[in-house]
Amino acid sequence: MIPTITAFERSPDGGQGLARDMRVRWALEEAGQPYNVRLVSFAAMKQPAHCALQPFGQIPTYEEGDLVLFESGSIVLHIAERHGGLLPDDANARARAITWMFAAIGTIEPPIVEREQVPFTERDQPWYEARLPLLEQRIRDRLNVLSGRLGTADWLDGGFSAGDLMMVMVLRRAEGMDILEHYPNLSAYIARAEARPAYQRAFAAQLAVATGNSG
Amino acid sequence: MIPTITAFERSPDGGQGLARDMRVRWALEEAGQPYNVRLVSFAAMKQPAHCALQPFGQIPTYEEGDLVLFESGSIVLHIAERHGGLLPDDANARARAITWMFAAIGTIEPPIVEREQVPFTERDQPWYEARLPLLEQRIRDRLNVLSGRLGTADWLDGGFSAGDLMMVMVLRRAEGMDILEHYPNLSAYIARAEARPAYQRAFAAQLAVATGNSG
Repeated sequence: MIPTITAFERSPDGGQGLARDMRVRWALEEAGQPYNVRLVSFAAMKQPAHCALQPFGQIPTYEEGDLVLFESGSIVLHIAERHGGLLPDDANARARAITWMFAAIGTIEPPIVEREQVPFTERDQPWYEARLPLLEQRIRDRLNVLSGRLGTADWLDGGFSAGDLMMVMVLRRAEGMDILEHYPNLSAYIARAEARPAYQRAFAAQLAVATGNSG
Repeated sequence: MIPTITAFERSPDGGQGLARDMRVRWALEEAGQPYNVRLVSFAAMKQPAHCALQPFGQIPTYEEGDLVLFESGSIVLHIAERHGGLLPDDANARARAITWMFAAIGTIEPPIVEREQVPFTERDQPWYEARLPLLEQRIRDRLNVLSGRLGTADWLDGGFSAGDLMMVMVLRRAEGMDILEHYPNLSAYIARAEARPAYQRAFAAQLAVATGNSG
């Protein structure tokens, strides 16, 4: 059964792969699985029909027969557990790869999203400019550790895994903050991921929505 | 093989079960699994020996033979996948329970931790008091949805699962913010979880560390 995912009808990033459907598209491409996409407008995302699938009114969702999932991490893990290409066979290596998925979402993403959101939520506040350096330092505190842990390795723990997929997607949300540029090994890590054919197919598919070439 | 977890030598909450080792202790108790605890001081948490286990210098960690894991969500999922009591047998229900684990960590916890941390990171800033209502509204925006979704059910999706465990632990971090009190069904949900014998054993074990009665 071919699953259906949801994505923004008009992505705020104009198709640069920062919306969270990109995580799911990339995972499906790594797993070699076809999928359908249903585009959702901002208005429709907050309506009961969509909120029955995703109570918080966000994308992506994942529908496969009777199964409905949300949260990009959960969807990527579901795909990874059912198909090859995203988790190692060895049980311990598999558990460590899943640890990096949780580290991406629980430890690295929150300060990045916080910095990403303030221009939309607090730009009119008198403290807006003064707080930005604090927010950026919180990101650097986490990336200092991540960069040290990655070192000269290609991926976080052995071969490419769903842990790297989630981490790269989370790191990409820090683009434009003048932070990633100061971590050459993290920049190379992101570029290495972006060079993967599965990433490129997923990127092209979501960009086609923005450019109206999705056929 | 009995796993070893790490916990604060002196928990900032004085043993009220808010530190993240409580999540792991509770999961192990639900699964009926014995465990050892190694207490770590704040100084030792930042030293190389601990950072080799947990690169971000935090607790908990989980060691089981050669396997080392961190991130409470990952550890709870590892326990849940290997033992009974935390995930349903049905594959779809299992995937939905894992979705709630990710929702707890990725959607509900960030605004709560943000509000929890500002007294430590921004109390001396001129904007501190003025920002608090914004931070609290962000929590309410998420809890409005969660409360609506839970409705009159006992648990988020059928029987108690690791998704409820993570959600209750995340919600408890909002105690003292005068927010949870306004959601009677979420308060009852937390109380229902706290009444579970496994929760009570885990709570007693971590409280004993704080009171010096851990034998």
